Amino acid sequence: MEFRISDIIRKKRDGFALTKEEIEFFVRGCVDGSVPDYQAVALLMAIYFKGMESRETADLTLAIAHSGDMIDLSLIEGIKVDKHSTGGVGDKTTLVVAPVVAACGLRIAKMSGRGLGHTGGTVDKLESIPSMRTTLERNEFFDIVNRIGLCVIGQSENLAPADKKLYALRDVTATVDSIPLIAASIMGKKIAAGSDVILLDVKVGSGAFMKTVEQAEKLAEEMVSIGESVGLKTAALLTNMDEPLGNAIGNSLEVIEAVNTLKGAGPEDFTRLCIAVCANMLFLGGRGSLQECENMASDALYNGSALMKFIEMIRAQGGDTQVIYDTNKFKKAKYFVNITANESGYISKIETEKCGNAAVLLGAGRAEKDDAINYAAGIVLEQKIGDFVNRGDVIATMYADDIALFEPASKLLSSAVLITEDCPQMKNIVLGRIG
Amino acid sequence: MEFRISDIIRKKRDGFALTKEEIEFFVRGCVDGSVPDYQAVALLMAIYFKGMESRETADLTLAIAHSGDMIDLSLIEGIKVDKHSTGGVGDKTTLVVAPVVAACGLRIAKMSGRGLGHTGGTVDKLESIPSMRTTLERNEFFDIVNRIGLCVIGQSENLAPADKKLYALRDVTATVDSIPLIAASIMGKKIAAGSDVILLDVKVGSGAFMKTVEQAEKLAEEMVSIGESVGLKTAALLTNMDEPLGNAIGNSLEVIEAVNTLKGAGPEDFTRLCIAVCANMLFLGGRGSLQECENMASDALYNGSALMKFIEMIRAQGGDTQVIYDTNKFKKAKYFVNITANESGYISKIETEKCGNAAVLLGAGRAEKDDAINYAAGIVLEQKIGDFVNRGDVIATMYADDIALFEPASKLLSSAVLITEDCPQMKNIVLGRIG
Repeated sequence: MEFRISDIIRKKRDGFALTKEEIEFFVRGCVDGSVPDYQAVALLMAIYFKGMESRETADLTLAIAHSGDMIDLSLIEGIKVDKHSTGGVGDKTTLVVAPVVAACGLRIAKMSGRGLGHTGGTVDKLESIPSMRTTLERNEFFDIVNRIGLCVIGQSENLAPADKKLYALRDVTATVDSIPLIAASIMGKKIAAGSDVILLDVKVGSGAFMKTVEQAEKLAEEMVSIGESVGLKTAALLTNMDEPLGNAIGNSLEVIEAVNTLKGAGPEDFTRLCIAVCANMLFLGGRGSLQECENMASDALYNGSALMKFIEMIRAQGGDTQVIYDTNKFKKAKYFVNITANESGYISKIETEKCGNAAVLLGAGRAEKDDAINYAAGIVLEQKIGDFVNRGDVIATMYADDIALFEPASKLLSSAVLITEDCPQMKNIVLGRIG
Repeated sequence: MEFRISDIIRKKRDGFALTKEEIEFFVRGCVDGSVPDYQAVALLMAIYFKGMESRETADLTLAIAHSGDMIDLSLIEGIKVDKHSTGGVGDKTTLVVAPVVAACGLRIAKMSGRGLGHTGGTVDKLESIPSMRTTLERNEFFDIVNRIGLCVIGQSENLAPADKKLYALRDVTATVDSIPLIAASIMGKKIAAGSDVILLDVKVGSGAFMKTVEQAEKLAEEMVSIGESVGLKTAALLTNMDEPLGNAIGNSLEVIEAVNTLKGAGPEDFTRLCIAVCANMLFLGGRGSLQECENMASDALYNGSALMKFIEMIRAQGGDTQVIYDTNKFKKAKYFVNITANESGYISKIETEKCGNAAVLLGAGRAEKDDAINYAAGIVLEQKIGDFVNRGDVIATMYADDIALFEPASKLLSSAVLITEDCPQMKNIVLGRIG
């Protein structure tokens, strides 16, 4: 069916719902180039202002999913489970959750992304492990999952190409923070990636797209309803992103923290989040009641079986497991510099995005898509919100290979931290659950 | 000053006013290509939804005006007056108004546009006069105005290039009907064109961008305030566009109607509009009270002096004046077909846009920018709203060179006309005045 894209733009601009055929025409046109970028953006901005009904969002999601390869995981035995985080700073959850869930008998055949801007990416973190391969042929990927229960690789080139295209446009046209567009982007990729179960980790707070629990609930409900409508077992956790997750920000620094967590010695907030995510994945995968699943996840974390799974996965993907057995063997940054407290009091704010951007300045991330990464660079927070510090106490340590990078990074990082006389209100790491 | 265009988009998206510097950065970037089309459209759509304050609209107008040549008319003696119509079907007003105003002693150094879609353009109408030149060097243009008082040519290539760029994008992204964008587009070109006085003819009704008097008033007020703010004498008439203006639609057909009007034998609605426009231009140009100016315009129309001015202009621009002395000498279309009334009753609706598009189908206009025009093709309405017809009476006559064109055109044109038992409410041609 042929449409005029300008009519579709006008229809949405005037607040009407688009048909499935109109949405498919738009998505197809974005990928094959018949819809020029300026018309695509006009529609995205109209959607930003006028929203989409749930039915439209589901149609957009499916059109995005079907815009490229639909991964068929049926050659992998068992229940395949996936997770997705809406993005945070210091979010190394997959590194812990994947081995825990695999240790508990479900299958993880996961494709992850790279970092851009203030948020990191799981693939970059894995690549900080020497020799680790994150680009595998489909057959090898399936074989590894069938053999050991898990494998985490980079997102295939042709997975949901419409999403790549639309996201690149949204990123530079102030059309990112739209609930239907976010929901369709995430769920489109997840549906194409082929798992049976999806657990969504929707970040809420000053460091997340969703600033309030209400917004996050709306996004989570939208995504869960899309998942259910296509027969995926889907649930969402709303989790706190008022400060970076855990203490480490930066690729090998985060792997080290994940390994410590897999040894039962991780930061409290991060450990609790991992157990909650795992419990919900196991629950959706039918491994028992939520409480049973939580116990199962906790056991796998504390009895070493999850760490063994992680090591198995690294070995299977060609990585050097020595750095996992002894994380001191990770290549270190040449220099480190501490940030100290200028006054005594409670840490009451740690602005997430500033921390992420400070880590980028130190070399840990990418300002632009093709920038190189220094895997050893980054930040380790010594204090978290609610901690009491005395003047002069170390708040954070920065790592970099070039001394000149510390000045701008420390300026930004210092400005991210607020110390007050009163102890701030503390928040749980898990704020809610949908689905 | 450097900005990030995505920040500017976000600011407008969130409903904030842009600074003069931000607006200039955007307009400059559109013209030099440093702002890609997709970001330009994102901002245009955000402006569509969030509007602009008068100050922002004025800044946008000036940025558009200064994006190319600013025509300096100071080499022309006397008061230079200009007019602009927001676009209608059958709008040949300039062909009558320019000679009347010149005959009354003011100067018309006017640049006009070509037609696109259902609306025609003055330059195309003039070019239906054999040998007429509408592309003149600046010096010759000035000389003619100094010598005879008027000259009407095509818009120079480098007049307000930002407007050309933005309009082309708006046209295909459903961002045309935004009052600040329309106001800035019109006034940007008019300010660059250099006259001292501008009379705006804001069309209102089913066949115009502005469907209601309230919308039209808002647009008119915006434009008048922009004009006044840069020292131009500006006023606006709100005029009815519920049906085509006059009877003729099509290039030489409209010239013939304009000549008849200059002989005092034009259609009533069109003649009244021309006198009102002329009176207001003369009034703004300081030629007396509005009543005196109306009398002056009326005299020029009925005593032949305006027709003489028109002939002088055509001669100066190389055109064949024989067709004006005897309009039967215009090249005629090969065929004509009448549309007749299917029932008796009052003509209560003549949909303007359908009439314009039917004329395009007959060859009188352009569907695409580079289409050729058949100057003799078009439509002459034999009836106007409020006329009583008997079944079988001719409502309109269509002219074309290819018989195959009549079927689709007559279908469209017939569907444009509604006949009812009751006489419709009649509207004045001039509905209001601003400024």
